[in-house]
Amino acid sequence: MKLSDIGEFGLIERIRPVLSEDLPPYMLGIGDDCAVIQRKGSRSMLVTTDLLIEGVHFLADRISAYELGYKSLAVNFSDIAAMGGEPESAFLSIGLPEDTGIDWLDDFFLGIKDLSGSYNTMVAGGDTTQSREGIIINFTVIGSADPGRIKYRSTALPGDLICVTGNLGDSGGGLIILLGGMDENSDPNLKTLVRAHHLPRPHLEEGRLLAAEDGVHAMLDLSDGVDSDIRRVMENSGVGAEIEIEKLPVSPELRNACSRYGWNHYELAAAGGEDYCLMCTVEADSYRTIAGEFRKRFNRELHSIGHITNTGRLQYMEKKRSIDIGKRGWDHFRK
Amino acid sequence: MKLSDIGEFGLIERIRPVLSEDLPPYMLGIGDDCAVIQRKGSRSMLVTTDLLIEGVHFLADRISAYELGYKSLAVNFSDIAAMGGEPESAFLSIGLPEDTGIDWLDDFFLGIKDLSGSYNTMVAGGDTTQSREGIIINFTVIGSADPGRIKYRSTALPGDLICVTGNLGDSGGGLIILLGGMDENSDPNLKTLVRAHHLPRPHLEEGRLLAAEDGVHAMLDLSDGVDSDIRRVMENSGVGAEIEIEKLPVSPELRNACSRYGWNHYELAAAGGEDYCLMCTVEADSYRTIAGEFRKRFNRELHSIGHITNTGRLQYMEKKRSIDIGKRGWDHFRK
Repeated sequence: MKLSDIGEFGLIERIRPVLSEDLPPYMLGIGDDCAVIQRKGSRSMLVTTDLLIEGVHFLADRISAYELGYKSLAVNFSDIAAMGGEPESAFLSIGLPEDTGIDWLDDFFLGIKDLSGSYNTMVAGGDTTQSREGIIINFTVIGSADPGRIKYRSTALPGDLICVTGNLGDSGGGLIILLGGMDENSDPNLKTLVRAHHLPRPHLEEGRLLAAEDGVHAMLDLSDGVDSDIRRVMENSGVGAEIEIEKLPVSPELRNACSRYGWNHYELAAAGGEDYCLMCTVEADSYRTIAGEFRKRFNRELHSIGHITNTGRLQYMEKKRSIDIGKRGWDHFRK
Repeated sequence: MKLSDIGEFGLIERIRPVLSEDLPPYMLGIGDDCAVIQRKGSRSMLVTTDLLIEGVHFLADRISAYELGYKSLAVNFSDIAAMGGEPESAFLSIGLPEDTGIDWLDDFFLGIKDLSGSYNTMVAGGDTTQSREGIIINFTVIGSADPGRIKYRSTALPGDLICVTGNLGDSGGGLIILLGGMDENSDPNLKTLVRAHHLPRPHLEEGRLLAAEDGVHAMLDLSDGVDSDIRRVMENSGVGAEIEIEKLPVSPELRNACSRYGWNHYELAAAGGEDYCLMCTVEADSYRTIAGEFRKRFNRELHSIGHITNTGRLQYMEKKRSIDIGKRGWDHFRK
């Protein structure tokens, strides 16, 4: 049997019992955005790590060195945001072909520094090595959170509203542009989408505001898309979900690009991936208050896109009627 | 200018000012075996990370899955040992070709679990992804140490004896066997050397004993070989060193293999690399006491192989006369 037969989720399910069976109760293991390590008398420690491989996660000739540095760190900050935490230190392992240009490296580290500096986080160590082929980047980020305020994937309840903190699908649209070799400079809408793909803003402030609310039950970041990520909430919380596709928030730029190039904006919003905003489930009675605080603080909506059910299934609705959206979110090992 | 022009150390020197200029005083940055993060009222946090790439750091057809899992974690434990700390949690990022066998994976995780279990450390999280080609492994290990007892590379003093906690060159001999396609089953000496290369034991207990001694000034682990690693102590401490090559401890197995296959055991002991025992510098007046405690606890010698000088240069001696050993230790980016 091969890895391709069991898929990435199958692999994680296979690793979990081997590595986590002895995890002490103060440590929460594999399966959420971050590992959580409780510490006596202080804030809990959050740890997350992400491996990015050229040709798998990015195309070196379509992303600038600055953007690649920025994004490699941003996706880890997004995991910290998903637990309601703050990043504190970052550790970079990088494998580079020996013909990597020094100018490229300087820009790469500038992208990292601009993001880490914005959030008062230090790159405090790492490892550099030669690669045989292509660029390999692994960031590990350590953060902290108030132990009573950490939000998990496993705590959604039937009746909760499903909410997202930003527009969906821009990054997925950007990826289509990059993979299709389209010229994003030909159309300002396309430029916005590519930018969303290359320079995702981690929703750290949003995560902290939401984590402080008792009415927010579950939270995670949207790395693979609503379609894939809501299934993680469903599996971890033992619930179902109903998504109203007209409610998926879509930027004017994506809407314009979709009409011009014939893309389906529902599909991109639900399954495009790499949005790196947050998805949370909110007690229905608290939604108005929390959305009001969110609006006051960020001057935009906390979009409600559906609700948690007790069916165990994922159902998409359009104009109150159930529909089949087709495409599933990414699973790196399945075709 | 390319990376190959400045080398790995050049790259680190180039990164350091960009990323570390704002490091607060409670954080020690790039350049030692681990990053050290001081925490109020508790033990300091140690963090280390290592990226291993198939074809650069290991040959997948010459190392078993079990050994690869074990060694990937062991090299990080060795960094924790070098600071006198204890490992607490580990985070694994792994990139795998999609045709990776499930049996291989099970063995890989067993190798990890056997080592982590021996040191009461938990693999508490990670990231799994597909690679385009070859296996990519990154471990980040978090540990802790008594803040008053941490040993650095920068604290060697002229007159200190240079000591090592184990035999040198076995692993380098093992690498010759693997690269040369020799059959290690043909000779029990070869088997021992390959085993030293594939299953290095991190010297965690040795590190803790030495860290507790005020007479131990500087410490690091021998990852690239005495020749390369003593230069790190020299640069960081602003000192020189004299190594007496007859004093480099060599196992009977390496000695036998060297006579049989015509290898130079001095060169392997000084520059073979990947020994993963510890090197420390010890105040001359304290050496006898510390070596006695070491012998009592571990039933073997703390080998003195030379001393720290104030010349700023590295000098090899044989029968009290200076010699030129030739080969330098590894530098991943230089040829």
